[in-house]
Amino acid sequence: MSFQNPVFIPGPTNMPEALRKACDMPTLDHRSPLFGEILRPALAGVKKVLKTDRAEVFIFPSTGTGGWETVITNTLSPGDKILAARNGMFSHRWIDMCQRHGLKVEIVETPWGTGLPADRYEEILTADTNHEIKAVLATHNETATGVKSDIAAVRRALNAARHPALLLVDGVSSIASMDFRMDEWGVDAAVTGSQKGFMLPAGLAIVALSPRALAAVEAARLPRTFFDIRDMTKAYASNAYPYTPAVGLLNGLKQSCDMLLGEGLDAVFARHHRIAEGVRAAVSAWGLELCAQTPDVYSDTVSAIRTPDGFNATDIVTHAARKYGVAFGVGLGEVAGKVFRIGHLGSLTDVMTLSGIGTAEMVMADLGLDIRLGSGVAAAQEYYRNEEVLSSRKAA
Amino acid sequence: MSFQNPVFIPGPTNMPEALRKACDMPTLDHRSPLFGEILRPALAGVKKVLKTDRAEVFIFPSTGTGGWETVITNTLSPGDKILAARNGMFSHRWIDMCQRHGLKVEIVETPWGTGLPADRYEEILTADTNHEIKAVLATHNETATGVKSDIAAVRRALNAARHPALLLVDGVSSIASMDFRMDEWGVDAAVTGSQKGFMLPAGLAIVALSPRALAAVEAARLPRTFFDIRDMTKAYASNAYPYTPAVGLLNGLKQSCDMLLGEGLDAVFARHHRIAEGVRAAVSAWGLELCAQTPDVYSDTVSAIRTPDGFNATDIVTHAARKYGVAFGVGLGEVAGKVFRIGHLGSLTDVMTLSGIGTAEMVMADLGLDIRLGSGVAAAQEYYRNEEVLSSRKAA
Amino acid sequence: MSFQNPVFIPGPTNMPEALRKACDMPTLDHRSPLFGEILRPALAGVKKVLKTDRAEVFIFPSTGTGGWETVITNTLSPGDKILAARNGMFSHRWIDMCQRHGLKVEIVETPWGTGLPADRYEEILTADTNHEIKAVLATHNETATGVKSDIAAVRRALNAARHPALLLVDGVSSIASMDFRMDEWGVDAAVTGSQKGFMLPAGLAIVALSPRALAAVEAARLPRTFFDIRDMTKAYASNAYPYTPAVGLLNGLKQSCDMLLGEGLDAVFARHHRIAEGVRAAVSAWGLELCAQTPDVYSDTVSAIRTPDGFNATDIVTHAARKYGVAFGVGLGEVAGKVFRIGHLGSLTDVMTLSGIGTAEMVMADLGLDIRLGSGVAAAQEYYRNEEVLSSRKAA
Amino acid sequence: MSFQNPVFIPGPTNMPEALRKACDMPTLDHRSPLFGEILRPALAGVKKVLKTDRAEVFIFPSTGTGGWETVITNTLSPGDKILAARNGMFSHRWIDMCQRHGLKVEIVETPWGTGLPADRYEEILTADTNHEIKAVLATHNETATGVKSDIAAVRRALNAARHPALLLVDGVSSIASMDFRMDEWGVDAAVTGSQKGFMLPAGLAIVALSPRALAAVEAARLPRTFFDIRDMTKAYASNAYPYTPAVGLLNGLKQSCDMLLGEGLDAVFARHHRIAEGVRAAVSAWGLELCAQTPDVYSDTVSAIRTPDGFNATDIVTHAARKYGVAFGVGLGEVAGKVFRIGHLGSLTDVMTLSGIGTAEMVMADLGLDIRLGSGVAAAQEYYRNEEVLSSRKAA
Repeated sequence: MSFQNPVFIPGPTNMPEALRKACDMPTLDHRSPLFGEILRPALAGVKKVLKTDRAEVFIFPSTGTGGWETVITNTLSPGDKILAARNGMFSHRWIDMCQRHGLKVEIVETPWGTGLPADRYEEILTADTNHEIKAVLATHNETATGVKSDIAAVRRALNAARHPALLLVDGVSSIASMDFRMDEWGVDAAVTGSQKGFMLPAGLAIVALSPRALAAVEAARLPRTFFDIRDMTKAYASNAYPYTPAVGLLNGLKQSCDMLLGEGLDAVFARHHRIAEGVRAAVSAWGLELCAQTPDVYSDTVSAIRTPDGFNATDIVTHAARKYGVAFGVGLGEVAGKVFRIGHLGSLTDVMTLSGIGTAEMVMADLGLDIRLGSGVAAAQEYYRNEEVLSSRKAA
Repeated sequence: MSFQNPVFIPGPTNMPEALRKACDMPTLDHRSPLFGEILRPALAGVKKVLKTDRAEVFIFPSTGTGGWETVITNTLSPGDKILAARNGMFSHRWIDMCQRHGLKVEIVETPWGTGLPADRYEEILTADTNHEIKAVLATHNETATGVKSDIAAVRRALNAARHPALLLVDGVSSIASMDFRMDEWGVDAAVTGSQKGFMLPAGLAIVALSPRALAAVEAARLPRTFFDIRDMTKAYASNAYPYTPAVGLLNGLKQSCDMLLGEGLDAVFARHHRIAEGVRAAVSAWGLELCAQTPDVYSDTVSAIRTPDGFNATDIVTHAARKYGVAFGVGLGEVAGKVFRIGHLGSLTDVMTLSGIGTAEMVMADLGLDIRLGSGVAAAQEYYRNEEVLSSRKAA
Repeated sequence: MSFQNPVFIPGPTNMPEALRKACDMPTLDHRSPLFGEILRPALAGVKKVLKTDRAEVFIFPSTGTGGWETVITNTLSPGDKILAARNGMFSHRWIDMCQRHGLKVEIVETPWGTGLPADRYEEILTADTNHEIKAVLATHNETATGVKSDIAAVRRALNAARHPALLLVDGVSSIASMDFRMDEWGVDAAVTGSQKGFMLPAGLAIVALSPRALAAVEAARLPRTFFDIRDMTKAYASNAYPYTPAVGLLNGLKQSCDMLLGEGLDAVFARHHRIAEGVRAAVSAWGLELCAQTPDVYSDTVSAIRTPDGFNATDIVTHAARKYGVAFGVGLGEVAGKVFRIGHLGSLTDVMTLSGIGTAEMVMADLGLDIRLGSGVAAAQEYYRNEEVLSSRKAA
Repeated sequence: MSFQNPVFIPGPTNMPEALRKACDMPTLDHRSPLFGEILRPALAGVKKVLKTDRAEVFIFPSTGTGGWETVITNTLSPGDKILAARNGMFSHRWIDMCQRHGLKVEIVETPWGTGLPADRYEEILTADTNHEIKAVLATHNETATGVKSDIAAVRRALNAARHPALLLVDGVSSIASMDFRMDEWGVDAAVTGSQKGFMLPAGLAIVALSPRALAAVEAARLPRTFFDIRDMTKAYASNAYPYTPAVGLLNGLKQSCDMLLGEGLDAVFARHHRIAEGVRAAVSAWGLELCAQTPDVYSDTVSAIRTPDGFNATDIVTHAARKYGVAFGVGLGEVAGKVFRIGHLGSLTDVMTLSGIGTAEMVMADLGLDIRLGSGVAAAQEYYRNEEVLSSRKAA
């Protein structure tokens, strides 16, 4: 088991030294006042990262999937109708979860590689004059395809249709790495996990609910206990949990927020964009194409790269792991075998990224693809060395 | 925030150095074959600790509460009837969860401080000739009262009544510290967490299901996704998870099992018993009484100690934390203010326990209780120094 | 190998969590400017702990013994005469080192258990009208006997004799735990290590030289390279080292100073005194006596406890380690077998100390000494619970 | 302070995760039997790495420089004559140390960039018919120039001259990374530190003495105490130290030996050679030259790279640190400003090395050198992907 090379999967990401140390805590009595000194700043920090003053944040010892379940079980009731587009594996899974909880999902099938169809949403919502649709699902960043969607446009669609449905957003692979404006975009529920932009181990579901979403909690009739916002709200009032919290991860989250806000969110987002642009320059130099079809939907956290027809893209991932000890992501669902993915989020530098690009080149050459060694690296180098770095590098 | 003194709460427990290091892992690609080298031994180790060959183990990034929810949502359907005794805060909470999930609970109110009423169970089950009762809940160790129950007796009750109900057991504060015989006792579902006998941080729900419980999964109609055993089973088949696992904690669990099995389960249980007996000797020397009413129900993981009438036992906990930096447990529910609790499970030595007993003495003296300083310590010392230690002390 | 119980040796001491993390650093280029951000505050912090404005601090990847060698090789020349009292094992060893380096040592034999004979020093210095004596050695705290000496009195002796000899002080087991006033006492060289009052792993020799000592460096003709103050001075001018520094330990030292100064030196010293007084109360309750003969020389960092004639005190240490996993110190040199030692310096609480006292009681009872279990613990408890704590407890 | 990128200095090197954890130990009583369980395997492991059955190993809490001082003070006397070649900064420093300790050094000035002149040694030794020369110094790997010397040839020179002088070898930047055959080459003293091939933090001087060197210890009249082999020998006999050992580092050394021997020394050396060859391929692709003048002296642990006349090579190091957060080594002494150094020893992978090469390219391009981006990376990629890896990658 080699931990020497960075990982290039789209989460869990590489972890900064300081965050690993923050998580690795001795046992602290979670019923003592000391716990509040961890919980309060963690909650406040997440709010800042989400750019929200109005929402309440809830953190569960769980994962992003648990965050999704938190959102639907706390705001919806069996038989409720929801609207969702399927444009990748993670939007697909969320839809599946809704169906398994007895919700009726109006699915807008959307080509993998494109963003959420805000126009189509607007048509459907406008037609829904009885307001049967209770919620709209929106995956901000499709981790499977490397596609970013325009959440503000979805909000505009809701507004144009004068529709009261809740806007529920999966920000698992975007939040803390790409700009996310909960209040400005009128997001009612935002979901993420600890292991992506927050650069921590997996183990926390991070959920934020707007006042409108909170107002829906009491009436929501889907059964839940572990994920019940009501228990959490009551416990938070005395800086406690309804069960044993993951204290170390919460301490890590507190420090992660400090680190992100210390660097400056704009600098964090610019850094992710810069690193992603370097990867995209490499892809272009290789003569390959992204799964994401147009630049406006290019994700700054993960690139899904199409390989030539007849080539099994999954071989790249297997070979890279076996021969070079480097982890990339495989294609999922509809694009399985057709793409491999380079994750470029979290704790990463230009320099580390060069080694990922360089490894991908060796792997593709090994597997017989017509890739000139060093070509992608050179394209990324040229980009990186000429880009201004927004903030000074900080301790990590 | 002082981490110098041991904690004496009934979980999370003190953590061995080696387990903290096992949990504090760099990022590992959980889709790589390396993950199986962590998952497989962790699952196998838990089975050994539970003394089961037949059950399957499932581990969720969650807590014991999530484990309870896993068990009921995967084996029961809305409207199902279950049988449960309420003899403490944790049995109460499990009942509450069942009710919130639409189950009908036949509650046997049982005095706090006594064990589960197997006789009464037998009567009820015998009377239930239509087998409307689908499951029997049993809390092996009531953390709130320091009361251990006889699970084998509950099984005998089921057998005597020739009743097919599933036997669902909460072993959160017993498993890995006290003897638990899943197969021998005919337990159908066992639940625990990582932060008790396994001496790890909170963050894992550990669930084991017998073949009979597994057979019930497909028919169970309570909605679930995050906790769905079906998804987990499918993913485990390829050493994977349906979402991002808590790799570090799983690695810690693997090593915890190695540590427990290396010491020997009998030695582990004997150690917990010895340490607990010392605490009970101290309580007796103080002239105080346990909440647990008879020696057969004394818990080896936590002692709830009754304080004199008119005295607020919670003051002990507050004062100990503030003045001495030591964490004890407060009384919960029906015994709030009437007891304080000394947790004595997990990674603890006789020597560490003396400091907990000594601190409790200073605190009670400070608060005006008629306690002779050193009296409880002397009783524990006398006990500890004359007890044989089963196994040699091992690295931790 | 059990790391669960605290150690009660007179160094290395128990380490605070935060200092372990500060030492456990990834590789940092020690020739980069970042290194200065560690070195500078560490040097400045040590000066504050030593209460000196005038002295210069030098830190070697070595131990206290290396610190001694640094002092003599950098200030003296072969054949130089020095004055030293021998009242314990560590003063003995320093004398031995001087002799091995070709220095002539005038030794004042002093009963083990008493402090340095300032009066006798004054007589000798007054008689040395030719100022042949170039340096006076003084062991501030004799770790072998638990005896503290009055360094201010030694300075007064020098002044009374109007003698220019350098005053070289071994503060290995006093500095950062007991008051040390380098400037006020006119100390010319002070030596300590990282593993005592600074609560770090062993590996640093910490040396401070007064302007007078620094003035002696150029003329000193004892050979040295690794410990050469001249190389170190030149390197420090550019925040560098003449060889590879122990970066992690220096980072730990920086943070240790922050921690000590954050608590407040007076509070640190008061804490050590309080904990030591509790131990002494226990010794008295046991009916035993300290090796230190009078209260004015009682050390606040280590107690050497005399056992009854005919009893081998070393058995206590062996038995405590084997049966209870607790480390005490053996007697050394003249008092080998006659005393055992309880170290009570560094990162320790009243609560932890109770477990050390309680263990000593069990051990002595096991070995047949007439010790009433709990008696020493009770005496310490009575003392601790009535003592005011100077500063609030801080994170560690 | 960024710890994200690997370092490319010639030590301290990048540290494997497992070794950092081995070093980060709680306090262990170094006078307890447990200490022997660390010391013994560490000493035995070092002997295996040195390929010696006959030598004794001694480990000081110090650095390589302290190791040098140990060797000369324990085998030589003031006025003794020694033979040494000066072909770089580290041979220069060792000569300087000898002179400061009153030894007469016959210096063979040797061009920087070439290896030790065994022929010239043979002439001088042959001419020294009175055997006035007591020792021959040999720097196995000149870290300043990236030059490896042939120690076997120096031994042949001694043998040819039938000269009894001791052969003292500085293996600081070679041992554990490049083949070192203490017994076969007739090395009498070998010196290294913890922070190079052993991949640990700085803080240990590691010295091995042949039976002939050990025989010289008693007669050696240079003063020493901290570094005295006699005290160390006596203490080792009871698994102890004459002062406080650096227990955590020794534990790390034990585990480092396990790791190296587990991978297999041949595999370790082959790995270093492979990585070095990749770097050299890059240098060649850049059109630059190594300081090392001929392939037979190319070092597998560090490459010193000459930059064009008129260019200040130190700017590369400064710019790389400031703009890219990557540490390279500057030129020292005679080649200051003329070379920059890429360290490629210790815990490094092909993949990590690509990022170092890629960074060097960006830096040189930024500074106006005529370097084609990606050219060195491509050359290294081509080499790496076609090279067989000797052993399977192991946990680290």
